[in-house]
Amino acid sequence: MTTTARAHTNIALIKYWGKRDEKLILPYTSSVSLTLDDFYTDTTVQFDPHLMADQFTLNGRPQSPDKISAFLDIVRAQAHSAQFAHVASVNHVPTAAGLASSASAYAALALAASREAGLQLAPRDLSRLARRGSGSASRSVFGGLAIWHRGDSDLTSFAEALPETKLPLRMVVVMVDAGQKKVSSRRLMANTVATSPYYPAWVKDNERAAGDMVKALAAADFTRIGELTEQSSARMHAAIFASDPAFTYFQPATLTVWHAVQTLRAQGVPAYATMDAGPNVKILTLAPAVAAVKAALPEFKDRLLVAGPGRAAKVLEEAQ
Amino acid sequence: MTTTARAHTNIALIKYWGKRDEKLILPYTSSVSLTLDDFYTDTTVQFDPHLMADQFTLNGRPQSPDKISAFLDIVRAQAHSAQFAHVASVNHVPTAAGLASSASAYAALALAASREAGLQLAPRDLSRLARRGSGSASRSVFGGLAIWHRGDSDLTSFAEALPETKLPLRMVVVMVDAGQKKVSSRRLMANTVATSPYYPAWVKDNERAAGDMVKALAAADFTRIGELTEQSSARMHAAIFASDPAFTYFQPATLTVWHAVQTLRAQGVPAYATMDAGPNVKILTLAPAVAAVKAALPEFKDRLLVAGPGRAAKVLEEAQ
Repeated sequence: MTTTARAHTNIALIKYWGKRDEKLILPYTSSVSLTLDDFYTDTTVQFDPHLMADQFTLNGRPQSPDKISAFLDIVRAQAHSAQFAHVASVNHVPTAAGLASSASAYAALALAASREAGLQLAPRDLSRLARRGSGSASRSVFGGLAIWHRGDSDLTSFAEALPETKLPLRMVVVMVDAGQKKVSSRRLMANTVATSPYYPAWVKDNERAAGDMVKALAAADFTRIGELTEQSSARMHAAIFASDPAFTYFQPATLTVWHAVQTLRAQGVPAYATMDAGPNVKILTLAPAVAAVKAALPEFKDRLLVAGPGRAAKVLEEAQ
Repeated sequence: MTTTARAHTNIALIKYWGKRDEKLILPYTSSVSLTLDDFYTDTTVQFDPHLMADQFTLNGRPQSPDKISAFLDIVRAQAHSAQFAHVASVNHVPTAAGLASSASAYAALALAASREAGLQLAPRDLSRLARRGSGSASRSVFGGLAIWHRGDSDLTSFAEALPETKLPLRMVVVMVDAGQKKVSSRRLMANTVATSPYYPAWVKDNERAAGDMVKALAAADFTRIGELTEQSSARMHAAIFASDPAFTYFQPATLTVWHAVQTLRAQGVPAYATMDAGPNVKILTLAPAVAAVKAALPEFKDRLLVAGPGRAAKVLEEAQ
């Protein structure tokens, strides 16, 4: 039997930055995200009693199975199985977009592998499992808006769907630097926690912001949603810049876009900037304003992607 | 009688950002600065019993005397005088350099006006007086390196000279955006204090850094001096970026230079970046490395100024 699952990537509106447990991936703060429709990973899993080790291909090419195997060990332990697996993933996330493909990748793998191993996990438990692969994957189990409750243990740290909003949310992804060398976000996260004098204040403020965001979403108050989004990102990057040694993901063009978004807003266009562990800028806006946002970034016109809310992770196919 | 005094501008290595008393200009943190030789203000003061109001010219052009008058009122109160004054200032600080001319301006005015009014202020008291015009002016009373002790009252908040260092310190000023519209730093300072969740941590950390800097200067440990310089600046700007609304003085070219400095250092060149209330970058380095710093910034080659330690404020001329 083989099982194929699809999960979409997501962008955090209220950010996740810093783990209090590196092994269980328990975060210091709760986070809130928007799952995106156009960017997803399809993953097929087949357990095979004849295999002597896990096998993993990404976009058709064989890869080291080390990370995948560590994750599958968790599934095997839950399913009381000792079989190795064939895992084939296809990423529909443009590499240049700099979007975290680990979110969609581990959410799809968690769903395909658990189902294939005979487990029928409730969404909350599927989220907990996905979290063990990559923190942000806990949120990609759900469609649209999701909140990852930080919790204080493996059992209590999981994401869940937030009520759907009527707001026509859109995310404009500006690829400012496709060729940027990747810096390990895991290592930088740990360094921020260890050395930034602002980290404790970040944790406190971001947890407050997560609660405020849930209320703003329920009230469909886009101005407040946008302000909270931009602020959570600014404060995360400020905490990172205050680390020792100082570091920033921002490139000059990141600031060009950031300033353009401030100017757009001064002109009445509902647009708010959010940045993750890379130089690209994602602009949260509403469908009717997408054209104005694009028009304000002429020098990036060939490097824009627009996405709307994505669906929950789902099983595409179960074949004998 | 007329008195002319000269004072040099200074760059804070350990930053000053935020007042706990707006009127007396008492800062939340101590700061450490380097006074620069090439940038200074010459100010001539003449009290005149026939004047009905203060008169003020800057670079030969008449200006509103309002700010100057408020400052002269403090001098008049100390000297038990009621005479108005002619004040003529000439700024030898390139406008495009974006250096705070208020530091040299109020230090020169404090010296010329107090002397002209018949006061012979001790350096500490001259620093306290200059502080009332502009916080950073308290440091421009001294040459070379100075520390402004935050204190907790008008009497205890003053700058004093730090021991001279044998290090051949140089500051390379990179004018990244000469035409930048000025944003009121006084207002932004107050907004950081009021809204940045990182401000309390900034105060605590920067006060620690001021103490560490005094030790690093005494030890002539340039690596440590540079690290503390870059970190104080990064953390100040991070605290500003975390304000509500988010704001940054950084322009894209600010980051271009910042990243270039990181690259220089990775190549073994002793260079550290510091930014103030504007987009320009000042690079702290040592005389033998100035050529390497300049060579690393070819696109700014016509927008570089190099300065070394400046002298203390002094009276140039007292004429009948």
